[in-house]
Order: sequence, then C-alpha cells, then structure tokens
Amino acid sequence: MNKRDLDTPHVLIDLDAVERNIARMQDIADRAEVSLRPHAKTHKLPVLAHKQIEAGAVGVTVAKLGEAEVMAAGGVRDILIAYPIVGEQKLERLIRLAKHVDITVAVDGYEVAEAISDAALEANMTIGVLVEFDCGFRRVGLEAGEPVLELAMRLVQLPGIEIKGIMTFGGQAYQAADESELRRLGREEGQAAADTAQQLIEQGIAADIVSAGSSPGSPYTANVQGVTEIRPGTYIFGDLMQVALGAQSLEDCALTVKVTVVSRPEPGRAVIDAGTKIFTSDGAASPIGTGKGYVVGHPGINLAWMSEEHGMLELDESEQSLAIGDTLEIIPVHCCAVMNMVDEVAAIRGEEVEALWEVQGRGKSR
Amino acid sequence: MNKRDLDTPHVLIDLDAVERNIARMQDIADRAEVSLRPHAKTHKLPVLAHKQIEAGAVGVTVAKLGEAEVMAAGGVRDILIAYPIVGEQKLERLIRLAKHVDITVAVDGYEVAEAISDAALEANMTIGVLVEFDCGFRRVGLEAGEPVLELAMRLVQLPGIEIKGIMTFGGQAYQAADESELRRLGREEGQAAADTAQQLIEQGIAADIVSAGSSPGSPYTANVQGVTEIRPGTYIFGDLMQVALGAQSLEDCALTVKVTVVSRPEPGRAVIDAGTKIFTSDGAASPIGTGKGYVVGHPGINLAWMSEEHGMLELDESEQSLAIGDTLEIIPVHCCAVMNMVDEVAAIRGEEVEALWEVQGRGKSR
Repeated sequence: MNKRDLDTPHVLIDLDAVERNIARMQDIADRAEVSLRPHAKTHKLPVLAHKQIEAGAVGVTVAKLGEAEVMAAGGVRDILIAYPIVGEQKLERLIRLAKHVDITVAVDGYEVAEAISDAALEANMTIGVLVEFDCGFRRVGLEAGEPVLELAMRLVQLPGIEIKGIMTFGGQAYQAADESELRRLGREEGQAAADTAQQLIEQGIAADIVSAGSSPGSPYTANVQGVTEIRPGTYIFGDLMQVALGAQSLEDCALTVKVTVVSRPEPGRAVIDAGTKIFTSDGAASPIGTGKGYVVGHPGINLAWMSEEHGMLELDESEQSLAIGDTLEIIPVHCCAVMNMVDEVAAIRGEEVEALWEVQGRGKSR
Repeated sequence: MNKRDLDTPHVLIDLDAVERNIARMQDIADRAEVSLRPHAKTHKLPVLAHKQIEAGAVGVTVAKLGEAEVMAAGGVRDILIAYPIVGEQKLERLIRLAKHVDITVAVDGYEVAEAISDAALEANMTIGVLVEFDCGFRRVGLEAGEPVLELAMRLVQLPGIEIKGIMTFGGQAYQAADESELRRLGREEGQAAADTAQQLIEQGIAADIVSAGSSPGSPYTANVQGVTEIRPGTYIFGDLMQVALGAQSLEDCALTVKVTVVSRPEPGRAVIDAGTKIFTSDGAASPIGTGKGYVVGHPGINLAWMSEEHGMLELDESEQSLAIGDTLEIIPVHCCAVMNMVDEVAAIRGEEVEALWEVQGRGKSR
C-alpha cells in the first residue's frame, strides 16, 4: 500500500527518520557513557521500544502504570515508572507487574513509599525505587539538598523497597530562549542530579542510578560527571517544539499528519480535515512562524487556528492553487500529544506503508 | 458500585444534571417552535443521543462520518453530518450509511457537492444536503448573500442531491464578552440564516430547514423568525466555557474528572494524577479565575498548569490540609475535548455508578 491511499486525517511515522533519531540519541548516550532509558510516552508503541532497546537502550521510562502494562505485554523487560503510584488498586497492579518484569518506581513522598513498602512486604518482594527530586521545574519532587536528603534517609529505613538511585526532570529546558540557555539548563539539571546523588552516598545510601535529561537537554545533561542515565522521549519523532529549541531539524521530524483540504471558502483560506482532535491545543505559541504546524514543503502556508475537526490555513500568494481534495503532510507542535489522539498510525518507508500500528499505549492515564 | 471505588483519573457523568440540561434545551426549542438536533460530538455516546431524542430531539448532528457510523450503529435514525465529505473512501462510506439511516450532509463548495451527486447517482439514490454558509466565524462556508446564493443555484442543478435547506455555525458566540453581546451574536446568527433561506426561496429553491445555533447562542438564535432548527452540543454536560459565558451554572456542569492527589511537594502546592492527557490544553484563558478547571467545592484551589500526566494545584491557606491520596472532582474548561481523551466514562446517579460507558465515538476523526 502506498501512503497516498491512506484516508485522512492519518498520522504517519517515517521509519527512516525514526531510525536516524534513535541512532543519534544512542550515540549521545554511548559517547557520554550513560544509559539511555527513553520515555515511551512519546510513541506508546512496544514495537518502537524494541527498536530503541535493540539500538542499545537499557529499557524504557513510562509515566503511568497502564503504559507499563502495555510495554510489559509487548515484551519490554525493564521499565521505570516515573510517577508516584498512589492507591490500593494501583498498588495491586504494580505488584502483579513486578512479578514478571523488572520495575522501578519513582517516589517523591514518604507516604507513597510507605504504601509501596507495605504492598511489597505483603507480596514478599522488594521494589526498586528512585528518589525523585525537583531541579527547578516545580512539578513533583522535593527541593534538592536538605529536603530530598531527609526523605531519602527515612526511605532507606523502609522494608520492601530498595533505593536504586535518584531522578529528576528538568522540564524548564523547554523554556530555553536559545541554545546557550538550553546548554546551561541541561548542564544544571545534570549537576543537580550528580550533587544530590553524592549527598546520598555521603550518608551511606547507595545511589547507583543518577537519572535526568529531557529530549532537548539530554545532549548536555548526559555529559555531566556523575549522571548515569538519560530519559529523553520526544527525540524519537521530533516536533516543532524541538525544532524551535534547535534540538532537531524539520528533516528530523518523523511524525506528520496527513490531511485533506475540504473547503476553499476564499482565495487566501483553505480548511483541512484535522483540528485539535488530532493536533491538540498544546504549545500555544507558534514556534517557527507557521502557526500550529508546519506543512511539509509549503513554508507559505500558516496553520492559523483550529477547532476540533477543522484546521484553518492561511495561504500566501504562491499557495493559492491549493484545491479541495489536495492532501498535505503537517508536522505538529507536540508529537507526544498527537500520538495520544489516534488509535492507529501508519509506519512509512519512503512512500510505502510498511505497517499499520495500533497505538497500544494510547489513553493509558491510570 | 459507589463512585468512591473508581480509580483515577476517571471521567464522571452526573445523570441528574444531564437530564436537567437535556430538558432545559428541549424546552427552549419547544417554546421557540424549532427542532432541536443536538451535536453529538460532545457526548459521543449513542445512549445519550437516545436520551435527547426521547426528550424531543429530531436526531443528531455529527462532524465526521465515523461519528455518524457510531450513532447509526447505536440505533440513531436521523443524522446530519455537518462537514464537507471529501474523497472516494468517504463517499463510499456515506452511500453505505445512507442506505439504512436518514443522512443529510452539509456542503459549502460545488466540487464537494458534485462528488456526492456522482456517488449518489451511481447508487441510484438521493442524498439530502444543507448548504452551509458563513455568518462570521470564518471557518467553512461561503459568505452570506451573493456567494452562497450563487452556489445554491448551481447545486440545485445537480442530480442525486436534494437541497433541504441551509445551515451556519456562529462559533463567534464563544468570544462574547458578556450576556448582551452573546444575545446579539445569537440573534445575528439566526437572522443571517433566516435571510439566506429567504434569498434561496425567492429564487425558487426550497429551504425548509434553516439550521443554526451553538450551545450559548441557541436560546437567542432559536427565537429568530425563520429559524427552524438549532444544533447545540456542549449544553448536555456544560463546562467552564459555558459558565464563563453565563450560559450555564457550575451546578449545571454534569461532567467532572475524578482525580487523586499524588504529590505534596510544598504546603501551597499539590499535584494530581491528571493533566493535558485528560483535560486537554483547550481554552487557554482561565474563564472563572480558578485556572484550567474548577475543583468542585474547593474555590480556594487553582489548577495552575498541567503537563501531560500532572496537574499542578495552587492551594490557598484554607486548602493546605489536602493530602496524598485525597480525591477531588474537577469541572474542565472544555467538556467535548475531555470526552475524546478517554475510552470509558462512569455514569453516576447520586453516589452510585449506574453504568460504565465505552465512549464509542471517541477519536472518530475520519
């Protein structure tokens, strides 16, 4: 099947670009002598997790238990759940999962760790944990320094869990104004992780895993002495946020949305058959000056605004021959979010549809 | 099952509120002596379409063919697809669908109508169409007046289709600054529809259906002389956008997201287990001053920002006892978008879970 035969809207994954992106990030990790544990929330596909692992990744990161279950069912054997597991139903699922794959869980609070400890003890097992701390993103995690050290010293007393190291996520890298700020933020994230691990070690707490690093920040985070693992996710596909940060180029972007022009109400306006139900409203700013997406090969088209099922294109003079029925491919602002909107994507090699993949990890928010 | 036993995040639908909202909009339509054809993109559930029809609705509106197929499979017999159908694959599906349910399709361009005409002729049937025009939202549809009249006069020549009337969508109602502007916009939308229908009739083109009206605008649109049908969607659940417009109250909001506090990194900050993967990034502005949602019963909590799986709550002094494991119910900014994120919702009566409903129309963008 040729990709021209796919009805729209349809998410396309360019396999050549995916493989280049996987190889490049693995190379960054290898040169820095750190482990790569990609965040699978971007692709949500066991088949792509296996491609990452075959290239050298040690396993995957996920946010939610449901994602871990999908990855485990798809044969991934080493999974970090970088999220606080709270509540009896989730603890039961965690224990079931930990019986057949290697699961590590992030914890950022004593109560969360205590409940995992109780559940693990009851099941007569030990669950590995990473102590999550905050390096400035102000999402989850205690502050670096005294607060996180104090938590770690309490956690080490708990039976049923084993501290394997520490983790942080420097999401502030996404606010970097330019490459030099990105470099600084990436390095600071790594340094905060290395310093925190050192503090634990000085208290006699083993911290073998020192895990940090976003997709844009990882090339810098990885090279900080003491960091042992990076967890980028978005790099596998790339998107306009990565392009805006200089972390990837438009040519690196592997995920596009194939759309069809369905209305031509005036010469300078065309309407496509995809809106926020595919592209989402993520990333309000227009990162490269073409609106809420980049129409591949058509820099004169601006994806000006969207409603749920409509995307409104502003056409400059050179694009006004665009006609109803024409198809376009559009790079989205935020690729991870797009993968969560669709039940199936098409894996493309050149012009050929090599596979139709069910997005098995879609919507797994529990 | 009690709703407290539902793991989180989980979307809850309060059936009492749904039934009140259905009755109220039906009453608005009945008093204005217009038909109500609710937009089913909000709920995406045949079971709720049937509740609307039992209350008096003439059928449903959908955006996409895939939604029409779900509604038809759920036993809904009268469906308006308010979207340009473009492409051979979709035309085939349209014809199949039109063989067993009553389908009307919006058209806003000659090429689109011509392709439907050809497909209908080949299948030896007639497809009813509404001529869609633009009353100021600048999405799809030609301008009111001469452009749309000219189109209609060409369409009436096409075999295989039958013009049943006209439609428009005044999405600009959502930008109304206050109730008086909303009233004005709602009336203008209705007047534009009535005027356009009159122009068609004067040219000898039957325009029995004169269809317009959003959820906030419908109470005003419905009362314009000449309007015969309203198509509100969001009113069935309500959300903060409706509340901000004064169209519904917080008590009318039937859809909430049950969440759990999973992290308490500092006294004034709590993190919940749902972010943009449930709430979406729709509606950037904070419509009622509580951020990206309203925590039911807790006006002192601000849903300040979200990442995909985290929601960051700012707590005022009175809310700082909030603890890990506590659950909350949150009214979202845009309910239609939330329904598209989840595979299943819980239908709640009082405290009891009356049903778990698969969101059959979720993700149907083709």
